[in-house]
Amino acid sequence: MSSARKPVLTLETINPAVLDVQYAVRGELALKADKYMQELDQPGGGKNLPFDKVVTANIGNPQQKGLNQRPITFWRQIISLLEYPDLMEEHLEIAKKIYPADVIKRAQSLRKEIGSVGAYTPSKGVLAIRQRVAKFLQERDGHPSDPELIFLTAGASAGVAQILDISLKEGEGCMIPIPQYPLYTATLAHIGAKAVPYYLQEDAQWSMNLKSLKQSVEKAKAEGTKIKCLAVINPGNPTGGCLSREAMQDVVQLCYDEGMVLLADEVYQRNIFDPEHRPFISFKEVVKSMPMDIADSVELVSFHSISKGVSGECGRRGGYFELCNINPDVVEQIYKMASVTLCPPVTGQIGVDLLVNPPKKGDESYEQWLTETTLTHDNLASRSKYMCEQFNKLEGMSCQPAEGAMYLFPQITMPEKAIAKAKEIGKPADVMYTLDLLDATGICAVAGSGFGQEAGTYHMRVTALCPGVEEYVSKIEKFHNDFMAKYK
Amino acid sequence: MSSARKPVLTLETINPAVLDVQYAVRGELALKADKYMQELDQPGGGKNLPFDKVVTANIGNPQQKGLNQRPITFWRQIISLLEYPDLMEEHLEIAKKIYPADVIKRAQSLRKEIGSVGAYTPSKGVLAIRQRVAKFLQERDGHPSDPELIFLTAGASAGVAQILDISLKEGEGCMIPIPQYPLYTATLAHIGAKAVPYYLQEDAQWSMNLKSLKQSVEKAKAEGTKIKCLAVINPGNPTGGCLSREAMQDVVQLCYDEGMVLLADEVYQRNIFDPEHRPFISFKEVVKSMPMDIADSVELVSFHSISKGVSGECGRRGGYFELCNINPDVVEQIYKMASVTLCPPVTGQIGVDLLVNPPKKGDESYEQWLTETTLTHDNLASRSKYMCEQFNKLEGMSCQPAEGAMYLFPQITMPEKAIAKAKEIGKPADVMYTLDLLDATGICAVAGSGFGQEAGTYHMRVTALCPGVEEYVSKIEKFHNDFMAKYK
Repeated sequence: MSSARKPVLTLETINPAVLDVQYAVRGELALKADKYMQELDQPGGGKNLPFDKVVTANIGNPQQKGLNQRPITFWRQIISLLEYPDLMEEHLEIAKKIYPADVIKRAQSLRKEIGSVGAYTPSKGVLAIRQRVAKFLQERDGHPSDPELIFLTAGASAGVAQILDISLKEGEGCMIPIPQYPLYTATLAHIGAKAVPYYLQEDAQWSMNLKSLKQSVEKAKAEGTKIKCLAVINPGNPTGGCLSREAMQDVVQLCYDEGMVLLADEVYQRNIFDPEHRPFISFKEVVKSMPMDIADSVELVSFHSISKGVSGECGRRGGYFELCNINPDVVEQIYKMASVTLCPPVTGQIGVDLLVNPPKKGDESYEQWLTETTLTHDNLASRSKYMCEQFNKLEGMSCQPAEGAMYLFPQITMPEKAIAKAKEIGKPADVMYTLDLLDATGICAVAGSGFGQEAGTYHMRVTALCPGVEEYVSKIEKFHNDFMAKYK
Repeated sequence: MSSARKPVLTLETINPAVLDVQYAVRGELALKADKYMQELDQPGGGKNLPFDKVVTANIGNPQQKGLNQRPITFWRQIISLLEYPDLMEEHLEIAKKIYPADVIKRAQSLRKEIGSVGAYTPSKGVLAIRQRVAKFLQERDGHPSDPELIFLTAGASAGVAQILDISLKEGEGCMIPIPQYPLYTATLAHIGAKAVPYYLQEDAQWSMNLKSLKQSVEKAKAEGTKIKCLAVINPGNPTGGCLSREAMQDVVQLCYDEGMVLLADEVYQRNIFDPEHRPFISFKEVVKSMPMDIADSVELVSFHSISKGVSGECGRRGGYFELCNINPDVVEQIYKMASVTLCPPVTGQIGVDLLVNPPKKGDESYEQWLTETTLTHDNLASRSKYMCEQFNKLEGMSCQPAEGAMYLFPQITMPEKAIAKAKEIGKPADVMYTLDLLDATGICAVAGSGFGQEAGTYHMRVTALCPGVEEYVSKIEKFHNDFMAKYK
């Protein structure tokens, strides 16, 4: 049968929804950067390149090589004991010379609760850890939290994908901010649902605007789209914007009025730069503080992660979501779907435990933990501030200060000639800009078009994670000035 | 708006494909067992229960509490060093008293390659590890393997779900063995594709039969189903059957003739009980040894995992798949979809490295590694043999000997009265049987109906992982005899 010689799987025959998925954060630019890195890794390699290292400012990956954010010692000590429990059993006397007493105690207690980190746990995660997450949420929000409504996950991304997949029928809509983290558009395309954009207000530090939200709702309705969910990223990625209580109340009210499930991506809740002026407020607290009709009916799923914050444990894949006001039958379906994926990585679950239950004042590890986490937090805040100031000094670049998260999202006033050139080579102008930036400096940034932006505007996202920030920013400055001159 | 007070998410409004998903391994029975365990964990709890412990024979989870399969020391030593690298840096002199030299050396070399285990890796996994997987496959199969066609995954389940999702359009079919591991039916239901069953031959140690395969193909065609993939689990789950080269060649030929992608779930390749009579042969080797027309065209994806074998590191979530003869455009789509999930857990990736590159004769860790892995392997083989013999002595139970994997799948000759009783309570008779078994003995087994079986036959799946096998089997025997007497 000659037909069998044609491949079964081609772009024409595979799941068409897969073709619709776009994911810029790890796209062409990241692949090119990988190639440069491999070239530079060769002995004597990269001689023709105008830079001697690649600076990966494209992903919020604090512990990657070259960024050197140290993991929190307390975390790693505990996990190493759980990985190799002989250290706290037959080698205990030796271990005591290295490990603080509270670390050994905590590891022993986790060992008793969990057993081996190589065994499957319940699909929702270890009960004792979920209980401590509930306690953390209760203390944070001042409202009760039920461990049975907390699901540990393999990072927030896995949780968001699960919830979107369960919630939406084909063709139904989920409101997403523009700009947004592309996980949302990628997942919605994958499940055949519609991304209904609402635009953040750049000139007001990327805040949400009720009027524009309502316009988006009306527009979608007029087009016949049933909107079922509204996703908010707070603090914002890529914008760094942080919502006020009033803005959050507007969002909750809108969800109530329009019958939408609120998805609150709160993975940057610990990355807040000016907590007095703009503290992190959780959507759980806001929902539960509204009038009872709303507080007890607006369906909320909120997501958190160990990948961001001051832990930055991306490679471990850990996080959780909490369900609030979700119908019990639906909770059961969520549980069933979680069970098909067996369980989240166990040391990711342990990371969640350490996130919600850090050392306390007086514990042997407390001072070191405090020093390390304060340093990480302050570095991020000061780099973010410095970068923003420098960007705003450049002609043709303007940048909103970030109130939180790990990124800056400056706007580039793109010269007409650059736009024309980009059109000629078949790329958006900001993609051309970031590819040129990489070629000239070794710095990876992601073009604004990967996140969405108002038509006719151009941005890029850079992380505030890179050490040696003066050198790094000066390279961007030089490139930017050259670029603007070239296309003047 | 009063309509907002109705929940947005109900069984009527969520993604209907989710409702179609069934997953028996962690269903009603597992939940009931959890409840019993919690009861027994209370001080003085479980006094009214006729057993003092729950024996979880329902999941292939070797390291869970009560089963006590020790993790491989070599693995855990290396991972503990990578979790807390200070141990091999500032504390090196102390560490040398605990860790063998080859462990420290390997951890240092992985550290150099990977950096922090808390950082994202490339979405396909660490290149150096993929290179060593390729080397392992090359040595195993005698055919070249390309690291760029190897994707590390969060366990085999995640890989299988990714590949099915990308390969199939809605309504298209994937052939699956009956009985099967329910991941396949669950995933196919979830993506709206059709499971096209082919029946394994129970009376021939659950082997595949070309005639019955072809009948299934013809039946599906007559019903208008386009069959695009064929999944094989070898060694079989839940059956323990292991395929002969001839049977595998038939399968490959059929895939060639009918234009199907071959999905080879080979996660139990290391769990082989009688290697001289029935060795593990990989589908990659079989495909590549066929005439060139076939060898270079049949599309194959083969899956492996660190969760089974002699490592049993289920909680770590690690595995890989290898693509063979897949169209490069499609490989790119697979890469894109992997990138949306960021990366597999890093210590799961390290587990894959240790799986494909164990200590070698002469290395300091070799003897201990050999002793531990041999013990785990032999325990499994001898328990499997013993359980099968005992089951076959029982009236109303017959069991095929397992040639591999971790399970037995005995058939129960269900008395008419039991079938009638089950009908009365609205459950399949084998589900009633396993629930009664749990209530009477604390032993969790999964009913055959969770895996699929010939109509009118009844089975259960039990793992061969439980220590104290005589006591455990005698409890099953007693229950079974009582059950048969009750419904005679």
